Amino acid sequence: MTDTDLVRAIQHGDRRAVARALTRVEADPGGPLAAALYRHTGQAHVVGITGSPGAGKSTLVAALTVVWRAAGRRVGVVAVDPSSPYSGGAVLGDRVRMGRHHGDVGVFIRSMATRGQVGGLAQAAADAVRVLDAAGFDRVVLETAGAGQAEVAVADECHTTVVVVAPGGGDDIQALKAGILEIADLFVVHKADLPGADAAVAHLRSALDLGAPAREPGWEPPVLRVSAVADTGVAELAAAIDAHGDFLGRGEAWVRRERRRAEAELRRQLFARLVAPLLARADLDGPAGPVVERLVARQLDPRAAVDQLLAARAGAAGAAAAA
Amino acid sequence: MTDTDLVRAIQHGDRRAVARALTRVEADPGGPLAAALYRHTGQAHVVGITGSPGAGKSTLVAALTVVWRAAGRRVGVVAVDPSSPYSGGAVLGDRVRMGRHHGDVGVFIRSMATRGQVGGLAQAAADAVRVLDAAGFDRVVLETAGAGQAEVAVADECHTTVVVVAPGGGDDIQALKAGILEIADLFVVHKADLPGADAAVAHLRSALDLGAPAREPGWEPPVLRVSAVADTGVAELAAAIDAHGDFLGRGEAWVRRERRRAEAELRRQLFARLVAPLLARADLDGPAGPVVERLVARQLDPRAAVDQLLAARAGAAGAAAAA
Repeated sequence: MTDTDLVRAIQHGDRRAVARALTRVEADPGGPLAAALYRHTGQAHVVGITGSPGAGKSTLVAALTVVWRAAGRRVGVVAVDPSSPYSGGAVLGDRVRMGRHHGDVGVFIRSMATRGQVGGLAQAAADAVRVLDAAGFDRVVLETAGAGQAEVAVADECHTTVVVVAPGGGDDIQALKAGILEIADLFVVHKADLPGADAAVAHLRSALDLGAPAREPGWEPPVLRVSAVADTGVAELAAAIDAHGDFLGRGEAWVRRERRRAEAELRRQLFARLVAPLLARADLDGPAGPVVERLVARQLDPRAAVDQLLAARAGAAGAAAAA
Repeated sequence: MTDTDLVRAIQHGDRRAVARALTRVEADPGGPLAAALYRHTGQAHVVGITGSPGAGKSTLVAALTVVWRAAGRRVGVVAVDPSSPYSGGAVLGDRVRMGRHHGDVGVFIRSMATRGQVGGLAQAAADAVRVLDAAGFDRVVLETAGAGQAEVAVADECHTTVVVVAPGGGDDIQALKAGILEIADLFVVHKADLPGADAAVAHLRSALDLGAPAREPGWEPPVLRVSAVADTGVAELAAAIDAHGDFLGRGEAWVRRERRRAEAELRRQLFARLVAPLLARADLDGPAGPVVERLVARQLDPRAAVDQLLAARAGAAGAAAAA
């Protein structure tokens, strides 16, 4: 199937085409298929769900999906679990927890447990969001294990970022210290039936009162108490996420976030095109040995190494042009 | 003072020169001074200390410093606290906790609470490590708040990475899930006098037994119980860190880690030279409007945008060459 046919089938909501496209962008992040899909995106409200492992994000996403489905929304979910020897659990976990949506054409769930480069995973996740966007899912959830680079990538890709903490365990403190206050549009104190939930809510609220920079003027990040298991607060959370989307859409904020997504995309693709090949070249044997080895031996400093790599590339381009 | 004079003064261990150089690399990461210093580096054992906020990393670093000083080591510390509205605490905290080393010429401590780009902070931290390395500190500790991109950068910059968890609070679970097992050469269960320390140790050990990929064949990451406050286990930790350094030095592993440091350096500098200017250009008005805006409007896809940016750059270079 050509990319053009696949794009058309995706737009018609063909689930097999969507599944095939997701597999393809995972294998070839930033490739031609993602480019062909790009113009058909921009309709979905992209919602990032992040926070500490153990905070119950997947259960929460499943519960949100139920609420949105009942309101007639189509919901796509991309769950990113960075390479971990304990993964596989992600895929299995989703199947179990999301099982009640099996057979519902208004829901599409994909776990990505890609090993390997963080950059490749971020690109694949962004592409997967776009596949679901192009397929007409109007809520696309990007769920990430809340630590490491994936967390930062979430805020770059999403219109609305929800930070989930569980009471106790210092998770609330961590949320404060890890600079995560800046990326959150909404906070959820999950497992709100557990002891310590009040303290976590109070802690977050006082932190916000202390003057964390609001990401958008005019939006006060709410702190919501939710228990997906007890089914309390889930509808309120869905409503708050929708309200944030409406808030963004009323002003310039939606466009600002679209701009940030576009910049993240350019950054990734420029890196892949310009930097990655030169890093590969730095490993190759040159007249004086591989650049990396000469750096290790302190025969060369990094600025001079970059100059040499750029000169070698210019030389190669010049030779190609002359031939 | 010229860079050459400053480099010479640093090599002679002039503390004011070291302080001045640290200020300068923080203001101009990857600049000429860092390049001039590079050839005089490569002697220090660079030790990363990372883990959740609240795990007591700074206290632990202070305690380690005491042990190493008693053994005649010179200890440099770079403490990185990514921009947080609650920062400033980092600087103050260090001053208080590290106060007992005040006036000791064998110790140099610098907090970096740089706001702004993560990339710039990583480069500044790497440069600061090199300043201390060039100044003859034989243990250079890079302490980072254990969340977000800084954590990943630590493993790239260090020979030995110590992951610190505190008992209870799900910190041990987080350590497992965040892919942090892969970056740890040693684990510390800190505040080992608190309840839950046994469980945390058992949890980490069983996780390691389950077959986390050892970063280096032949090295089994130990799990150490430490309480800096009660002064138990600190000497053992210092010995374990030194043993890891010796282990690396016996084989190819030290060189592999030096290579990784060099590659991280190249990656950062290539990004700053090649990608950052094109991202800036993508924001400028072009014949059909700014590239970023056309991406937002879905008039252009990211691959085509990258092609246009590269073509515009080549055109500008050609015009400059012809002029």
